[in-house]
Amino acid sequence: MEPGPPGGSRPAERGPCLSSPLGADQAASASWLSAAGAEPGRYPLAVAAVLPAGGCGERMGVPTPKQFCPILERPLISYTLQALERVRWIKDIVVAVTGENIEAMNSIIQKYQHKRISLVEAGVTRHRSIFNGLKVLAEDQTDSKLSKPEVVIIHDAVRPFVGEDVLLKVVIAAKEHGCSDYDLEFGTECLQLALKYCHTKAKLVEGSPDLWKVTYKRDLYAAESIIKERISQEICVVMDTKEGEEHVGHLLEEVLKSEINRVKVTSGALCHAGGDLQQIILEQCYNFVCVNVMTSDFQETQKLLSILEQSNLSILYPVVVVSVHFFDFKSVPLSQKMENLMWIREFAKEVKKRNILLCGLLICYPQDEQKLQESLRQAAIIIAALIKERNSGLIGQLLIA
Amino acid sequence: MEPGPPGGSRPAERGPCLSSPLGADQAASASWLSAAGAEPGRYPLAVAAVLPAGGCGERMGVPTPKQFCPILERPLISYTLQALERVRWIKDIVVAVTGENIEAMNSIIQKYQHKRISLVEAGVTRHRSIFNGLKVLAEDQTDSKLSKPEVVIIHDAVRPFVGEDVLLKVVIAAKEHGCSDYDLEFGTECLQLALKYCHTKAKLVEGSPDLWKVTYKRDLYAAESIIKERISQEICVVMDTKEGEEHVGHLLEEVLKSEINRVKVTSGALCHAGGDLQQIILEQCYNFVCVNVMTSDFQETQKLLSILEQSNLSILYPVVVVSVHFFDFKSVPLSQKMENLMWIREFAKEVKKRNILLCGLLICYPQDEQKLQESLRQAAIIIAALIKERNSGLIGQLLIA
Repeated sequence: MEPGPPGGSRPAERGPCLSSPLGADQAASASWLSAAGAEPGRYPLAVAAVLPAGGCGERMGVPTPKQFCPILERPLISYTLQALERVRWIKDIVVAVTGENIEAMNSIIQKYQHKRISLVEAGVTRHRSIFNGLKVLAEDQTDSKLSKPEVVIIHDAVRPFVGEDVLLKVVIAAKEHGCSDYDLEFGTECLQLALKYCHTKAKLVEGSPDLWKVTYKRDLYAAESIIKERISQEICVVMDTKEGEEHVGHLLEEVLKSEINRVKVTSGALCHAGGDLQQIILEQCYNFVCVNVMTSDFQETQKLLSILEQSNLSILYPVVVVSVHFFDFKSVPLSQKMENLMWIREFAKEVKKRNILLCGLLICYPQDEQKLQESLRQAAIIIAALIKERNSGLIGQLLIA
Repeated sequence: MEPGPPGGSRPAERGPCLSSPLGADQAASASWLSAAGAEPGRYPLAVAAVLPAGGCGERMGVPTPKQFCPILERPLISYTLQALERVRWIKDIVVAVTGENIEAMNSIIQKYQHKRISLVEAGVTRHRSIFNGLKVLAEDQTDSKLSKPEVVIIHDAVRPFVGEDVLLKVVIAAKEHGCSDYDLEFGTECLQLALKYCHTKAKLVEGSPDLWKVTYKRDLYAAESIIKERISQEICVVMDTKEGEEHVGHLLEEVLKSEINRVKVTSGALCHAGGDLQQIILEQCYNFVCVNVMTSDFQETQKLLSILEQSNLSILYPVVVVSVHFFDFKSVPLSQKMENLMWIREFAKEVKKRNILLCGLLICYPQDEQKLQESLRQAAIIIAALIKERNSGLIGQLLIA
């Protein structure tokens, strides 16, 4: 089976689906793949992936096989599938799991809405599992929903941080080097298995530090922290305001910008049908600070929660919402304000079912400018802590700055 | 220089300073070392350690050299020093740091009360740094506070989880194998350096998974999680009660035991001069749940805080204290109770200076048995979250279960 021709006579360019920076050579070679983005249904080079996921996780020291260990309550393998799915030119993803885990795997696929996944039964060894995966791809059945690939990527289920750039390197190497003697000499047995049974091309290419394998318990910890950090890169301050309007939310936004390092702070308005907010959600911001200034205590937060619930944002990651309320010691007693806000516990329980972590934050609003800045700074510290930890044990709490 | 004789004719036994399980061979060989514990000042085998710590942390992707990166606000190197200090038969620890970091290193030694540490200036390479460390140990100066060692352990400053068992293996191998050809053939250049310049014995021995090196940012994350987990293994429920007395704290203790997995839950009484509590502190429990039932709102918590402040417990790790208060909706309005408890913010600010993280927890105490269990279960979830995250951004908050 020979790879298809490069993408016509157009100058080589980076495809729309390539999110990582690539060298010029790679960009040129990527043109057959990027064409796929432009013309749905037509993939000049057919690429599939096989994930051996039949391991039992002995070294992890936990009863659950490591590929099913939860990170932020979602199994590790789902993160790996997500990383492969994001790459639009991978047409089919075949996962090899043991018979007893097929049902659990199907639930994972359904719950996290994974696409282009097929399951096969794992073998007794990793190689057998790969073999089983390759076999279903190689079968020439007219009723199969899988297409026969020209390049197959073998990827460990427990390497969740694989980037499109590395995958592309793999495919380019497979296409350009084919099944040379070099592969046979320096490649692993997996390569030889692919060569022997499937007449499919493969080559060993260098990875990146991100590609590391979750092996020990400490790797699970590291993976969790990396994922938490990745989804904590942006905070959106949401308020019900028209453009240019003075709003206490803008004050908070400024303090968040200066107090929280290396985090992008944006703002979104609820009032004009939430257009910019929709865009922020689409761009996958997982942290919202919602400023309530209306007479009804949770008006803005309820609007935001309903927009979030309608989106699919919280399917893959827990979304943090901090419902912010201001109070002036002199006008309303703190205790009364707090009692009004106790409803947050009920809201929080409700939205937790949809993976939204809701907390309340009461910010003291004194007349004194310096004291106000101190309150806002304290608020920023609390918001940063809630977003960093993303701990569902703290939902429904009303914190005070 | 030859190693001293084995520890007399007594049967080989595990020394009192050896906290990790050892094989019979190791235990036998350890007898020269364990004798040191029994007879202060007399070390049958003189052991020292050299820590090259002059690296600049390029791979970490952060401006601070990795050995100085903070984990729970304490620099990584301090954890490594702590691991070596715990081993009583290591007499001297020589750290090689660059000139610009000598002052910072001295502050670390002072702040975390490290003992038996000497500093030398690092060289331009790791090997030069090791050489500088070995040189001061080998010098035969009568005015030197360092003793000339028979075995020197070279240990990376960025391997904080080294256990006594591995260190012992190193020393035993060094003593038994000496400077054989095997070492020269398979050892690293560091070994040859030691052999060439210091006439000191060394050998390459196998480590354990715990011994891994903090290299990438993900390793810092993993290290932080491991440390957090290690200091969250035990929770002590503190109450002011006499033995056998019925106390609401015992109810909470039972629920903590059943709800929080893999954590030892003990209880300590404040009343009889805190004898058992002192013991728990000595055994390094870093988590306290203090139950307040006296009329004055923080009586028990204040007692506990003063005991903790007098101990040195929080020098190395942040200690979590959850100040628990019960309330009955029917007898006192929630808002009034909460207002009384707002003082916790001031206490928390004060004790944070001594590395104690104080939070308040108000537990609803309904008459209905089932509802009470639900409140206590909720309290356990919150306590577990506070202990797990150990985030100073949340101190002084009053949470509600």
